[in-house]
Amino acid sequence: MQTKVEKLKINFKTLEEFKKFKEYGIQELSMLEDLEANIIDNDSESPFYGIYFGDKLVARMSLYQIDEKFDRYFTPPQSYVELWKLEVLPDYQGKGFGRELVEFAKSFGLPIKTNPRMQSFDFFEKMGFKSVDYETERDRGENPLLWYPEGTEE
Amino acid sequence: MQTKVEKLKINFKTLEEFKKFKEYGIQELSMLEDLEANIIDNDSESPFYGIYFGDKLVARMSLYQIDEKFDRYFTPPQSYVELWKLEVLPDYQGKGFGRELVEFAKSFGLPIKTNPRMQSFDFFEKMGFKSVDYETERDRGENPLLWYPEGTEE
Repeated sequence: MQTKVEKLKINFKTLEEFKKFKEYGIQELSMLEDLEANIIDNDSESPFYGIYFGDKLVARMSLYQIDEKFDRYFTPPQSYVELWKLEVLPDYQGKGFGRELVEFAKSFGLPIKTNPRMQSFDFFEKMGFKSVDYETERDRGENPLLWYPEGTEE
Repeated sequence: MQTKVEKLKINFKTLEEFKKFKEYGIQELSMLEDLEANIIDNDSESPFYGIYFGDKLVARMSLYQIDEKFDRYFTPPQSYVELWKLEVLPDYQGKGFGRELVEFAKSFGLPIKTNPRMQSFDFFEKMGFKSVDYETERDRGENPLLWYPEGTEE
């Protein structure tokens, strides 16, 4: 089946599907509360992108463009994309959905920063991400990995 | 057995003990490389605190004081302590070691910020931590919890 990456709208169906992902936290709870309290509308924009297999959400990630004035990773400072909560449901792993999401993130043409679990380090290294030199004040408990489009450097 | 929280020195024995903890990542690997390359001395200072049971490290956390100019959680901005990698080895859980570490962190008299796994949310709430209002740009994939000493507020 042909799949594609799409921007996820926030509605009760999406939020119900989010519960199946391990990395479910304050971000999702906050969206659910905002929807229930009519603080955000049904089908509001979200920073999440996902892949549907049939009508089932099987993979997702969150992407957010960080302005260069908040950049602490590149010299000179530049805008970049932060990627988090990249996750493929267990039954759908090993089918290229993770790769499809990362390729989509790369298509913005900006550097990407992510802070993966150590278990997914190999995956991100295969996708061309490189480890930063750890700095306590900046990185604290994170394990930051960076990817650069051709022509840019750390 | 009476236990106490102590600041951990970085040496090969400590780094070997760190490998038993699940939250082992770039921070630890970086300390190991620096030690091996003589970039840091044996018994250098670290941001880690731990509890020994006999001569075995059974619980640890990392603490780091964040200067008020980097504060994005409190109004007005103030210095606070960031706590990460709080972890008790499986055979030593439920004996109060986690609580002992958090009480130690509180003894600095500064607000504390942490970003726990969702599984340990209940523990931190019992310890008096409160969830922040989630903001995408600031919090991204984090689940931030804050604790305030008496007399301070978010």
